[in-house]
Amino acid sequence: MVQATALPRNESGIETAIGILKQRFGGRLQTGAAIREQHGHTTTWIENQSPDAVVFAHTTEEVSDIVKTCAAHKVPVIAFGTGTSLEGHVNAPAGGISVDLTEMNQVLAVHSEDLDCVVQPGVTREDLNTHLRDQGLFFPIDPGANASLGGMAATRASGTNAVRYGTMKDNVLSLEAVMPDGQVIRTGRRARKSSAGYDLARLMIGAEGTLGIITELTLRLHGIPEAISSARCSFPTVDAACQAVMMTIQYGIPVARIELLDEMSVKAANAYSSLTLPETPLLLLEFHGSESGAAEQAETFGQIAQEFGGADFAATSSTEERNKLWQARHDMYWASLQLRPGAHGMSTDVCVPISRLAEAVGAAQDKATELGLIAPIVGHVGDGNFHTLPLIDMENADEIAKANEFVGWLNDLAISMEGTCTGEHGIGQGKRPYLIKELGAATQYMAAIKAALDPDNIMNPGKILSD
Amino acid sequence: MVQATALPRNESGIETAIGILKQRFGGRLQTGAAIREQHGHTTTWIENQSPDAVVFAHTTEEVSDIVKTCAAHKVPVIAFGTGTSLEGHVNAPAGGISVDLTEMNQVLAVHSEDLDCVVQPGVTREDLNTHLRDQGLFFPIDPGANASLGGMAATRASGTNAVRYGTMKDNVLSLEAVMPDGQVIRTGRRARKSSAGYDLARLMIGAEGTLGIITELTLRLHGIPEAISSARCSFPTVDAACQAVMMTIQYGIPVARIELLDEMSVKAANAYSSLTLPETPLLLLEFHGSESGAAEQAETFGQIAQEFGGADFAATSSTEERNKLWQARHDMYWASLQLRPGAHGMSTDVCVPISRLAEAVGAAQDKATELGLIAPIVGHVGDGNFHTLPLIDMENADEIAKANEFVGWLNDLAISMEGTCTGEHGIGQGKRPYLIKELGAATQYMAAIKAALDPDNIMNPGKILSD
Repeated sequence: MVQATALPRNESGIETAIGILKQRFGGRLQTGAAIREQHGHTTTWIENQSPDAVVFAHTTEEVSDIVKTCAAHKVPVIAFGTGTSLEGHVNAPAGGISVDLTEMNQVLAVHSEDLDCVVQPGVTREDLNTHLRDQGLFFPIDPGANASLGGMAATRASGTNAVRYGTMKDNVLSLEAVMPDGQVIRTGRRARKSSAGYDLARLMIGAEGTLGIITELTLRLHGIPEAISSARCSFPTVDAACQAVMMTIQYGIPVARIELLDEMSVKAANAYSSLTLPETPLLLLEFHGSESGAAEQAETFGQIAQEFGGADFAATSSTEERNKLWQARHDMYWASLQLRPGAHGMSTDVCVPISRLAEAVGAAQDKATELGLIAPIVGHVGDGNFHTLPLIDMENADEIAKANEFVGWLNDLAISMEGTCTGEHGIGQGKRPYLIKELGAATQYMAAIKAALDPDNIMNPGKILSD
Repeated sequence: MVQATALPRNESGIETAIGILKQRFGGRLQTGAAIREQHGHTTTWIENQSPDAVVFAHTTEEVSDIVKTCAAHKVPVIAFGTGTSLEGHVNAPAGGISVDLTEMNQVLAVHSEDLDCVVQPGVTREDLNTHLRDQGLFFPIDPGANASLGGMAATRASGTNAVRYGTMKDNVLSLEAVMPDGQVIRTGRRARKSSAGYDLARLMIGAEGTLGIITELTLRLHGIPEAISSARCSFPTVDAACQAVMMTIQYGIPVARIELLDEMSVKAANAYSSLTLPETPLLLLEFHGSESGAAEQAETFGQIAQEFGGADFAATSSTEERNKLWQARHDMYWASLQLRPGAHGMSTDVCVPISRLAEAVGAAQDKATELGLIAPIVGHVGDGNFHTLPLIDMENADEIAKANEFVGWLNDLAISMEGTCTGEHGIGQGKRPYLIKELGAATQYMAAIKAALDPDNIMNPGKILSD
């Protein structure tokens, strides 16, 4: 494990808060080592920093009570959804209380006529889509994991559909949140647009729980398209695949998804998901529209692909075939780990202007090779976003050093290309130095906002901003 | 004129700052009454509150120098674009310096391969689109006026294309801004998405210059669609037209524009723009796509319209005909004023969930009739946003009272329908009481952010937040 910095602990405050909350919540407050560890960071390479207690909240009022108690005693509060983040977001470097929101998992309303819905933060994206299916609606944002919608908002998540439907930033109409003083606010109403005051919804989205806890979300929905077709196309090189992506975007084809798997990732997918894809760089696409519209898009893409040496172009509108392919794509993180059993993946998440995509991916491959790293690449390439996943033996200090060198080098490269060190994973603990490199003086104003809203730094301390 | 509240003036600070700035800017600092009045609020019913001086800035560094000088002497700074806002945004209730940005009007870069561009804040939306046309690109956000892009960002503007392309919130990748202490920041880079820290771009968008001055914008662009077709369709009643809109949106037709003109507005448009439209409620639409896609959309809409008694359905792909119709739509504010020469328009701007649209528009018509007001209605109805424009004799106190009653009643109605008092005009001076009604406790955190970033309240004081 890579060590995470511990922060000073307020021992007496923590003890007092736990005592008060134990009285209030009984068996719903737990302090066992296993459950605490499970609520620290587990899915990635960053060391687990467990909270001192976990409370399972059921209502906004309960979340407010927890925050008020913690505020009174200056105790850290960390919101917890599914724990699938990759940058140490749910770690408790100063201890404190993890507020588990998974039992706040009700879809409160679906306004199909307004194409929106109201959900509690613990509803997962898959649960929501299951709930919506009968009404012909869907929610497009799909990070790899079946994450909670509250967590997805907190990290400004996106996924494979962002190229067409945007990110969480674009698909939240309004939020209810418990602020650092325990007060409950609503950032907006159900109108599809508004110019009413500062955009607090967008401020909370991506704030990673450092400014408050999201307790309810009003989400934009979309009608399930009349026609959905998928396509896959193999390319001789990653560069050729990226060139085809760039041309597709520049041509204005409204692709719903356009995903890259490099050769190593295709091998991993074949093994993990029992597929028989040609083991060369691959693009996976999805087209949404009317029957003729989706077909037209697929055809135009086919022509572009051919120009760049694309082969084995295969389009399908079979739901079963499509689902199998996209499930394999969503499982890539786990599939990649199987390339080197026992290794940990250190996922990168850079995003560059689309014109720099081929160059950035190529350079990442070369650098990984130079350092002797096994590092498959997948990407939401329609946005210029890709993930390299160096697979590291965490007992091998030299490998860890090389992986760290690689991650730093890649983040710097993206920033030098006018890109970002994180397209969708967030800053958490791991990327704080890069945030400063990327945004410089702007981070001072982030810190000022944090200090104004959370003067005692109780909301998810040690994340986003440097200490 | 409706009076605006004056705020305490820092006379000695203002005098000192003007002295320093006069030395620095010479003839580019002006204090003549005419130019000062022109930089107070002129296009609407709110009283003009002129600044003490106007400085024409040419560079970000100059804006920074102006803000630093004003910060040192606690003098208000008001950013000025084209002065076309409708809610008193550029008034100077505490006096101070108006920073005129119209001479910062360069398109700095167009990255056609990345579908983005970098512009100075004084570039207007029409100028940008003229600049882009040869490259097959366009910027979709189009408030009625030919506003500056900096001002459009500051008020989170939208217009007729928002139903498909979103608002300024959705079409700004990144901003450069001068903060209240004079420091220059950049909120992000050119990647199409990012999860890097607090979303300061979205915080500045809609902050109406109260948190800083936007000095550069990186904007998302869109390819000019292969095919654009327009349609118009007349309806027996506003209710029937709204029902058709609701069905169109719920059906998922990706209309680029869907605009309502009530009977009175159609009459005004006919008179002002020399048209011969049937004088009944009208929907104007635009469809973007491939040749077949745009045609398919128009056809599907035609079927829906028929269901609700739509008549005289006319689709066209003639550029000239289309431009004439949309120019007439953009001129509606001026056309409506001609319904009662000499009167002032008090534009409302509510936005409601689409399911409440017909009810809200109908109620607004009834209420205006009940109060004896002449109040044409136009609307970006695909978003549930519509403008009623009571035409008021500003010498008649009784009419002003009735108009105020109407505006308040309509804002309350929208809020009661889970809508907003402002879809796109912003809060400015006029809507501050409604912001509190709409968002309650959330406004306390807006005030906390304002106090943290601008402790001396020098950036556009008296706007958005109540004193």
